[in-house]
Amino acid sequence: MQLAIGLYDGFTALDVIGPYQVFANHPGVDVVFCADRTGPIHDDVDHLRVQVDATFADVPAPDILLVGGGMITRRLAEERAPIVGWIEAAHPATTWTTSVCTGALLLGAAGLLDGEPATTHWCAYDQLAGYGAAVTEQRVVRTGKIVTGAGVSAGIDMALTLVGLMDGTDLAEAIQLGIEYDPQPPYDAGAPSKARPEIKGLVEAVVTQAEAAI
Amino acid sequence: MQLAIGLYDGFTALDVIGPYQVFANHPGVDVVFCADRTGPIHDDVDHLRVQVDATFADVPAPDILLVGGGMITRRLAEERAPIVGWIEAAHPATTWTTSVCTGALLLGAAGLLDGEPATTHWCAYDQLAGYGAAVTEQRVVRTGKIVTGAGVSAGIDMALTLVGLMDGTDLAEAIQLGIEYDPQPPYDAGAPSKARPEIKGLVEAVVTQAEAAI
Repeated sequence: MQLAIGLYDGFTALDVIGPYQVFANHPGVDVVFCADRTGPIHDDVDHLRVQVDATFADVPAPDILLVGGGMITRRLAEERAPIVGWIEAAHPATTWTTSVCTGALLLGAAGLLDGEPATTHWCAYDQLAGYGAAVTEQRVVRTGKIVTGAGVSAGIDMALTLVGLMDGTDLAEAIQLGIEYDPQPPYDAGAPSKARPEIKGLVEAVVTQAEAAI
Repeated sequence: MQLAIGLYDGFTALDVIGPYQVFANHPGVDVVFCADRTGPIHDDVDHLRVQVDATFADVPAPDILLVGGGMITRRLAEERAPIVGWIEAAHPATTWTTSVCTGALLLGAAGLLDGEPATTHWCAYDQLAGYGAAVTEQRVVRTGKIVTGAGVSAGIDMALTLVGLMDGTDLAEAIQLGIEYDPQPPYDAGAPSKARPEIKGLVEAVVTQAEAAI
């Protein structure tokens, strides 16, 4: 199966590299990064650049389509950037169409989530609801062949869930053990319901400021 | 502070991108990827190429030094590849010297772990012990200014631990919430002590085969 990971300038690195690592050693999946052009694509803080060799036109019919998020996704969704058209065209033939974080806004803009349960980064719940999605705070949400994950690091859980659906427990557990995914966060502030109000307010302020600067 | 992430052909992507994402939005840290040459550096499955603009010589004195792992690290350690010399030269002046996964073998080869507690990917415990380290199965191990993390995904926990040590709880929790790191693995097989024996054997066989092929 072909897994195509759609990138754009301003992507958040872990959103896509988490699922990438889950699938990198999957014996039946070939991964390709693609974008609206070939060449280096930079992430949201511009310290990381990924060399992309395939355009969206080169990968018109992936079996698994994955898009991650970034501060810029709201604008890409509103402007119907090329990645939205790619999702729209490819989705009818995919086996799985997936997103991590605010990548869900791109699925929304492609018209895939109207009336469907879905999730995204907690700072973007309202924006996702604007595309008709029934937003939930679950970490991984499946509706038919669409699987959405919550913010950034949730892509690892989303991808392991997907491997379990595709291939069963044994392979999913082997991959989990291979990447030693036995998380032990030193703090328990990873969800808006768990964080202290002042920490939540701080993150919301930073996100709002960063989005405004785009 | 400058965080320098040392890369080499054959690195495991999530090893470095997990910590990278934790530090990417840290207000006081500037991240730079470096390698023994500039240009694209490919990961262990060769689907991902990161464009690197700095050589080790360009980053001789990082405040935080981080190396990730990969199947090739045993060979790089044995051959004393350029990254080992970089670690050896930079370590005396770092504030923190850190590794994820089998990146610890590179610290070991640089002579940093002799008699020190440390961890690595569970498949490489014996190799790390060969460098005199007191290997533990803890997910994150600190000894003085050296912090080692276990396999692949443990870099996220390692980096959040480090932010807590450097900057205190508030910033660490804000970053955790920003990357929505509230892990909910769909399976509980992420450590050798938790996985079924046949799954553990499967992963060991794959790793042994992959290392032999290098």
